[in-house]
Amino acid sequence: MKKNNVTMYEAVNEIARRRGFFWPSYEIYGGASGFMTYGPLGSLLKRKIEATFRDAFLKPLKMLEIESGIITPAKVFEASGHVKSFKEPMVECTKCRRKFRADHLLRDQANISDSETEKLTLKQVSKELKRHSIQCPECKGEFGHPQYFMTMFVTRIGPYSDSVGYGRPEAAQSIFVEFRRLFEVARERLPLGLVQIGHALRNEISPRQGPIRLREFTIADIEFFFDPQDAKCNLLKQVEDETLPLIPGTLKSQGLKEALEVKVSEALQEGYIATEWLAYFMVLAKRFLNSLGVPDEKQRFIEKLRWERAHYSAQGYDQEVLLDRLGWTEVSGHNYRTDFDLKQHMKWSKVDMQVFKEYDQPKSVDRVFIKPIRSTIGPAFKEDAKKVIDVITGADASRFMQEMKKKGYVLAENFRILPEHVQVSRKTVEEKGRKFVPHVVEPSFGIDRLVYIALETAYEKKKDRAILKFPREIAPIQVAVFPLVTKGDLGKKAQELQRKLSEEGLEVFYDESGSIGRRYARADEAGIPLCITVDKLTLADNTITVRDRNTWTQVRIKIPELVPNLNAYFDRKITFEDLGSISN
Amino acid sequence: MKKNNVTMYEAVNEIARRRGFFWPSYEIYGGASGFMTYGPLGSLLKRKIEATFRDAFLKPLKMLEIESGIITPAKVFEASGHVKSFKEPMVECTKCRRKFRADHLLRDQANISDSETEKLTLKQVSKELKRHSIQCPECKGEFGHPQYFMTMFVTRIGPYSDSVGYGRPEAAQSIFVEFRRLFEVARERLPLGLVQIGHALRNEISPRQGPIRLREFTIADIEFFFDPQDAKCNLLKQVEDETLPLIPGTLKSQGLKEALEVKVSEALQEGYIATEWLAYFMVLAKRFLNSLGVPDEKQRFIEKLRWERAHYSAQGYDQEVLLDRLGWTEVSGHNYRTDFDLKQHMKWSKVDMQVFKEYDQPKSVDRVFIKPIRSTIGPAFKEDAKKVIDVITGADASRFMQEMKKKGYVLAENFRILPEHVQVSRKTVEEKGRKFVPHVVEPSFGIDRLVYIALETAYEKKKDRAILKFPREIAPIQVAVFPLVTKGDLGKKAQELQRKLSEEGLEVFYDESGSIGRRYARADEAGIPLCITVDKLTLADNTITVRDRNTWTQVRIKIPELVPNLNAYFDRKITFEDLGSISN
Repeated sequence: MKKNNVTMYEAVNEIARRRGFFWPSYEIYGGASGFMTYGPLGSLLKRKIEATFRDAFLKPLKMLEIESGIITPAKVFEASGHVKSFKEPMVECTKCRRKFRADHLLRDQANISDSETEKLTLKQVSKELKRHSIQCPECKGEFGHPQYFMTMFVTRIGPYSDSVGYGRPEAAQSIFVEFRRLFEVARERLPLGLVQIGHALRNEISPRQGPIRLREFTIADIEFFFDPQDAKCNLLKQVEDETLPLIPGTLKSQGLKEALEVKVSEALQEGYIATEWLAYFMVLAKRFLNSLGVPDEKQRFIEKLRWERAHYSAQGYDQEVLLDRLGWTEVSGHNYRTDFDLKQHMKWSKVDMQVFKEYDQPKSVDRVFIKPIRSTIGPAFKEDAKKVIDVITGADASRFMQEMKKKGYVLAENFRILPEHVQVSRKTVEEKGRKFVPHVVEPSFGIDRLVYIALETAYEKKKDRAILKFPREIAPIQVAVFPLVTKGDLGKKAQELQRKLSEEGLEVFYDESGSIGRRYARADEAGIPLCITVDKLTLADNTITVRDRNTWTQVRIKIPELVPNLNAYFDRKITFEDLGSISN
Repeated sequence: MKKNNVTMYEAVNEIARRRGFFWPSYEIYGGASGFMTYGPLGSLLKRKIEATFRDAFLKPLKMLEIESGIITPAKVFEASGHVKSFKEPMVECTKCRRKFRADHLLRDQANISDSETEKLTLKQVSKELKRHSIQCPECKGEFGHPQYFMTMFVTRIGPYSDSVGYGRPEAAQSIFVEFRRLFEVARERLPLGLVQIGHALRNEISPRQGPIRLREFTIADIEFFFDPQDAKCNLLKQVEDETLPLIPGTLKSQGLKEALEVKVSEALQEGYIATEWLAYFMVLAKRFLNSLGVPDEKQRFIEKLRWERAHYSAQGYDQEVLLDRLGWTEVSGHNYRTDFDLKQHMKWSKVDMQVFKEYDQPKSVDRVFIKPIRSTIGPAFKEDAKKVIDVITGADASRFMQEMKKKGYVLAENFRILPEHVQVSRKTVEEKGRKFVPHVVEPSFGIDRLVYIALETAYEKKKDRAILKFPREIAPIQVAVFPLVTKGDLGKKAQELQRKLSEEGLEVFYDESGSIGRRYARADEAGIPLCITVDKLTLADNTITVRDRNTWTQVRIKIPELVPNLNAYFDRKITFEDLGSISN
C-alpha cells in the first residue's frame, strides 16, 4: 500500500494542474497566495463531493439547506464574537518589512507546538521570539513587536464609510441570524438541522500549502439544533457499536499520540464526547470520508484543548486524515456550540431567539415574579429610573432573584439594584410548555481539502502511468466513449452513443484522437471508471466493449442493455463483472 | 391570463418569505439592503434553475465549467477596465448627508431615461440636477456636487496595505485570466465555451427592488471563444427559422418601442445581430426562459446603444422579461466582447494569449520583418536605447510598418521611432498556421432574478388559495407523501414510501399534520407537482393515489409501478394521466 512518499504531493498537484482539476489562481499576474481555480474536472469533482455530502448528512436527517451572502454587516460578527477573536499574532521584519505569523515562526524555528502558542499572550509571544533568537526567514532581519492581525476581510457596504462589512469566515452565522424564520419555515420542529455550503473567506497572513490553506474556500456547515433537556439522539442505536479513532483531550494532555479505537457507546460513557448528537455526526463524518475513498486507518478524531478551541465551542473534535507529505490534516471540525451563538444574537439584536415546546400535558409550577418598585427606584436612580425599571421588567425573574440572593444586589447595565427596588411574589401557575434557546452541534467541512484528499487518495502509479481510482460515485466523468477508428460509421455510431448517454444524465467524455492505448491512458489519468469502445463488431451485432479503469479488464455488452446496466453499476447495485460478458 | 396586477409582486414576496423561498437578510439587525437569504425551498429552486441552465447551455455545446474566487487582486480589474469604468454618479444631500445615485434621481424626478443619463458627464449631470431643481427625496435638502462612486467592493488581501483586492462584479474575468491553461486542458479546441456560475458583488449605492437588484448575487457567465475568421455557427441550422422578439439599436434610436418578431436568419442578414453565435445563444436563452415557465410573449431582446454598453462590448442585447409590477426586467445580457479582455490581459500581464491554428496545408506568405538599427538608435535615444530596441524587437512587424507608412514615425512608450532606426526586410515564408486572439460572445444570466421570475410566473390564485405552478423540472420538491390518517400502519407505510422515493433521488416532503385538505393546500403553495396519499386501500391492495397540483385530479397506481412512472413523468415521457388510472 505504500506509495512513493517523496513525490506524491507534487505528483498530485502536477496532475491537478495539467489535467485541469485545480491550480493556483492568477498565474499570469505572478499569482496571489491563497486563491485557487477549479478547472473543468475539478469543478465536476467538487460538485460530486458536495452531492455526496448532501446524501451522507442531509437526507438521513431531513436537514434543510440555505444560501446567503458572503459579505456580512459588521454587527453580525461583532455579536458572534468573531471581531474580537478572529485574529492571529503577526510580526513584521524591521529590515525587509515582510510580515509573518508569529505562531508559525515559533513552530517552525523553535519547535513550539500550535497548542502551546495558542496559550500565549502577545507579550509572551514576543518573549519567546526573543528567547529563541528568531529572525526573518527571508533576510535574517530582526522582528518588531508582535501585533494581532484580524483575519477577516474588511470592506464597506455602500457609500457610507461607517458601514463596515466583513467577508464571512464561516457559513454558520447566517443560519443563526435567520434562525427564527428558518425555525418557522421548518414548522417548529426540533431537532432541526440547517446547512449551508458556500464560499467563505479568511484573510490569512501568509497562506501556503496550496489547496489546504486558502484565503477563499468552500465550507459546508451543519448547524444541528436540539433541546438541551432532550439531548438524546434517536438514531444512536444505528452507530453505538461502531468504533471511532479518538484522541480525547484528557488523554491528549497526558501525552497520548496514537488514536484509540473507542466504541461510540463507550466514548459517551467515558465522557470523551460531550453529547450524543456530536458522536452520531462523528460516525457519519467517518463514513463520509470512507465514501470519498479514505479508509478508517487513515482517519482520526483529535479533541481540541480548552485554549485551542474557538471561542464559541464547549467541546471540539477535529477530524483528521493522514496525508502523504502534509501528515495529519484537518478535514472537519465537530463543535458543540451550545446556545452561544443564538444567545449572542439575542443579546445584540434584542430579538427573542427562544423556541417554545409544549408539554404533553400542562404542568403546575411555582414561579417567581418580580416588579420594579417605582417609589424607591425614582429617588435612587433619578434620570436613569426608567432604564432600571426596564431592566427589572425585562429580566428573567428566577435568575434575577438567584443573583440577588447570592450577592445581595444585582448589577445590570452598571446599575446596582437592591432588594428594596424589587417587589417579589410567588405563584403557582399552569404552564403549557417551556421556552428555551436550542443547543447546537456543528459538523463543519472544508470542501477544498476534501477535493485534494479525494485526489491524493485516488492516485496510483501503475506501469509508470498515473491512475486516479476515484470511487465511482465521485468520479468527475463517469464514462468515456471511443470509436476504435475515427473514419466512417464507427465515429458516427460512437458520437450517437455519447449523446445518448449524456442525455441519460451521465457525464460522458468523447475522444477520438490518438491510439486507443493513449486514449485509455488519458481516461485513467482523469479517473474515468469506464471506457466504452465502438469497434467493427459493433456495426455487426450492436455490442460494445466496456473497460474497467481499475483492473483494465473488459466486458462485451449489447447496446440496449447499456443504460440500465450503467445506472445499476453507478448505483452500486452490480459489479463491473455483472455489466456484460468478460471478453478477454 | 390577467392576474391581479395590484398585488402580485407583494403576494409573491409574501409567499417567498412565509414559505421560505427567500427574504431580505439580517432582519433581526434591521436589515442590510441588497442582501438576500434563500431558505430551504428557495435554495432547492435555485439549484434546480442552475441545473436547467447547465442542461440548456453546457450540454449541447460541451462547454466546460470552472470555479474560482470572488476576491480578486486589483490588477485583474485594472487590466479588464473595470476599475476605470465600474462607477456610478452619486450625490450627497448637504443637509441629511444621505447619498443617492444621480441618474436614478434624474430618472425618477425629471423623467430622463437611463439611456440619456448614460451619455452625460459629471458636469452635465450636475447641470441637469440643478436645471430640474432636484432635491433630496428624504429631507428636501440641496445636493452637493456629483462624484463617481466605484461600485466594486474594495478590500485588502493579506496584511499589506497596498495589496488591494476587489469583489468581482462578474464571473467572466477569471475565465479570461486562466484562458491559457483552460485552452490547454480543453486540448486546444475552438470554438470553446467556458462557464462559471457563482457569487458576484456590486456595491450598489442604494439598492432596492428586493431580489432584482442585489449587492451580492449569483451570476452565470458563459464565455464562448471562437476564431473571428471562422465565425460561422455550425448549429445555426437548428435555430435560423425561429423568431426572436427584437428591438435592434438602429430601430430603437428611431423610436421603436415594441419588439419585432424577427427570424434569426433575417436578423443576421439585416445586421441586427453582429455575429452568428450571438444569435444562436439568444435563441437558447429564449428557450431556457420558456423552460422556467416564461412564454415567448413575455420576452424581448433590446439592443444597448453605444453609450449604454459596457466598456468591453461591441454589441449588446439585454434579454428582458415582462413582470407584473417591475415591467420589462433584464434577465440576461448577450455581449459581443470580441478579443477585448484577452488583449487587455495580454497587455497587462505580458503573457501571450494567442492561440495557434494549423492550416489544412502549409501556406507560402509574404512577411515583413523588422530589426532595430543599433548604430542609429544609440545616439538618438542614449540611455533609453535598450528600451527602444526592445519595443522594435517585440512589435508586430506588419502593423508597425503600416503605422510608419501612414505617419512617417511610430510612437511607442513615448519614443518617436523613425524609419532610420528600423531595418526592414521581406521574405516569403512557409507558414503552418496562424496565431490569433479568439473572439468571445458572452451570454450572462442573473440567477436570483430567474428565481424571482420563476416564482412570479408560477404564481396563481385558485379559489383564494395560492398555487405555484412550477414546470415539473424546476419544482423544488417533486413529491409529497401523506398518510390519510396518522395513526397505525398508514403512517408507517407512508414513511417507508417517503424513504424509498428519497433514496431514488426524488425530493420528497412528508406531511402528516392537519386535514388532508390543509396538506394539499400547503403542498400547492410550495409548488409540489404531485401529492401521494396512503389510505386504507393501500394496505389492502398496495395502491396509492397521486394528485395533480395543476388540475387537482387524482389517479390510482400500484406502488411497484410508482418509481418508474414518476421517473418517466419527471422526464416528460408521460403525462399525469398516464401515471395511473383516473380515480375520481
